[in-house]
Amino acid sequence: MTEPFAARFAAVRDRYGPLVWGLDPSAALLETWGFGDTADGLDRFADLVIDVAIGTVGLVKPQSAFYERHGWRGIQTLQRLLRSARAAGMLTILDVKRGDIGTTNEAYADAFFGADAPLEADAVTVHPYLGFDAMHAFVRHAREAGSCLLVVARSSNPEGRSIQSARGEDGRTVEEALLRSIGELNAALVPDGIGPIGAVIAPHNIEPTLDLLAARSLFLAPGVGTQGASCADVVRTFAACLDRVMPSASRSLLSSGPDKNALRDTATKWASEFKQALSIA
Amino acid sequence: MTEPFAARFAAVRDRYGPLVWGLDPSAALLETWGFGDTADGLDRFADLVIDVAIGTVGLVKPQSAFYERHGWRGIQTLQRLLRSARAAGMLTILDVKRGDIGTTNEAYADAFFGADAPLEADAVTVHPYLGFDAMHAFVRHAREAGSCLLVVARSSNPEGRSIQSARGEDGRTVEEALLRSIGELNAALVPDGIGPIGAVIAPHNIEPTLDLLAARSLFLAPGVGTQGASCADVVRTFAACLDRVMPSASRSLLSSGPDKNALRDTATKWASEFKQALSIA
Repeated sequence: MTEPFAARFAAVRDRYGPLVWGLDPSAALLETWGFGDTADGLDRFADLVIDVAIGTVGLVKPQSAFYERHGWRGIQTLQRLLRSARAAGMLTILDVKRGDIGTTNEAYADAFFGADAPLEADAVTVHPYLGFDAMHAFVRHAREAGSCLLVVARSSNPEGRSIQSARGEDGRTVEEALLRSIGELNAALVPDGIGPIGAVIAPHNIEPTLDLLAARSLFLAPGVGTQGASCADVVRTFAACLDRVMPSASRSLLSSGPDKNALRDTATKWASEFKQALSIA
Repeated sequence: MTEPFAARFAAVRDRYGPLVWGLDPSAALLETWGFGDTADGLDRFADLVIDVAIGTVGLVKPQSAFYERHGWRGIQTLQRLLRSARAAGMLTILDVKRGDIGTTNEAYADAFFGADAPLEADAVTVHPYLGFDAMHAFVRHAREAGSCLLVVARSSNPEGRSIQSARGEDGRTVEEALLRSIGELNAALVPDGIGPIGAVIAPHNIEPTLDLLAARSLFLAPGVGTQGASCADVVRTFAACLDRVMPSASRSLLSSGPDKNALRDTATKWASEFKQALSIA
């Protein structure tokens, strides 16, 4: 049986630090790297970044959209990338932001969780617009597979505030209510530790402050680097639970490619910076 | 240049009525039909339903999750299914509920909108959790391609209420604010008609009543039949704009398969029932 994600994260964090390398092969990047914006170009990207990531970072996060835009060939590449990364001992976070109702979530869970899943990942992002309580199938499958379900709660873009800060009848905001529900379910599933349900939380300083500790969860903090948040922002936002945060950077690292040595140097520098800054010695 | 989706919907509606056939090949269905829960079984499903759908309904709606769970082979089947349906003159609604920020939405738009898109569809569902205003790329590409962007506003499951009925600072609920934003943008894009941005609205009687007319949009009404809503529910919910609603049924139709004649008879009966009930003579 696979060890729970939280334990596996703690292990790679000890070694490489918590940095997640976002693998976002945009059309512009594939052109800049001279690979061409094609399925073959995407294959070359995948081979190169996985080769550089091994031994450099503990976690990678492919953003599904950049693979889906190449159709089934892109999904074939994504499957291969996930398999290679996992085989090399890295943890994979598949950023798909799926989310639906009952049997449809069951079908998505089949795609992403467990040894038979074609796109098996150690963690998967989901959106909660159809309700956290509609995610039973996701939670069950993630838990059984030792995987982590990362629910988008507070996103890193300003346009997200309109929905995420709206208030329910009990006066709680949508994001507060989500974290609370996540904390309750995690406590029931894993009474003495970190549960299988994590949350995506922007690393910026956004008011009001959230009670992160009570979620008993890991956090994915996207948008570090080019998108605006610094290492200091991450430390400030997650001060209460530094050992639970997985900061993710993509463009800031990829901009050093396609030279492998330059790319490895940049990734190593970033990984080490976050390892130091988020250490809880 | 492709005619806008609203005009193309009006044309197929005149001929076949507004019924959307949801093509949801769950594991259970593939087994029940004797095809096996495999990529080959999925291929057989796709061939059979498209053959039956031609000349029977005007619109089909594959739910992406049921194809994604077969990995790249499933996406290959989905691409083929979409192409066949479009070639036969049907309108395709791809139910993917994607949604992210800036460049990621641009990548998703590349996957679904326009003649070069591998998964080209006439309409695509998106979720708004990261904010309606983050969807510029989706809206622009949908409009340019003559496609329709269907934003999930009020879902058909009770768990969705917690977020969808939360209130922003102006006192509007999330779903009300969404419909209002959709209406404003549609009015700016198409001053004298139905705009390219539609909404997914549950066909059940949920309070409070929404001002559907002001959205100047088409509506996808999912969950008709097995999931609970009747033809009468649809008529009641969309009374103000009967000619703008696309009711979608899946299991209720598919349960008559795999016999082609039985399946065609059921689909024909349902299509004709909705055509009559939603006619605005």
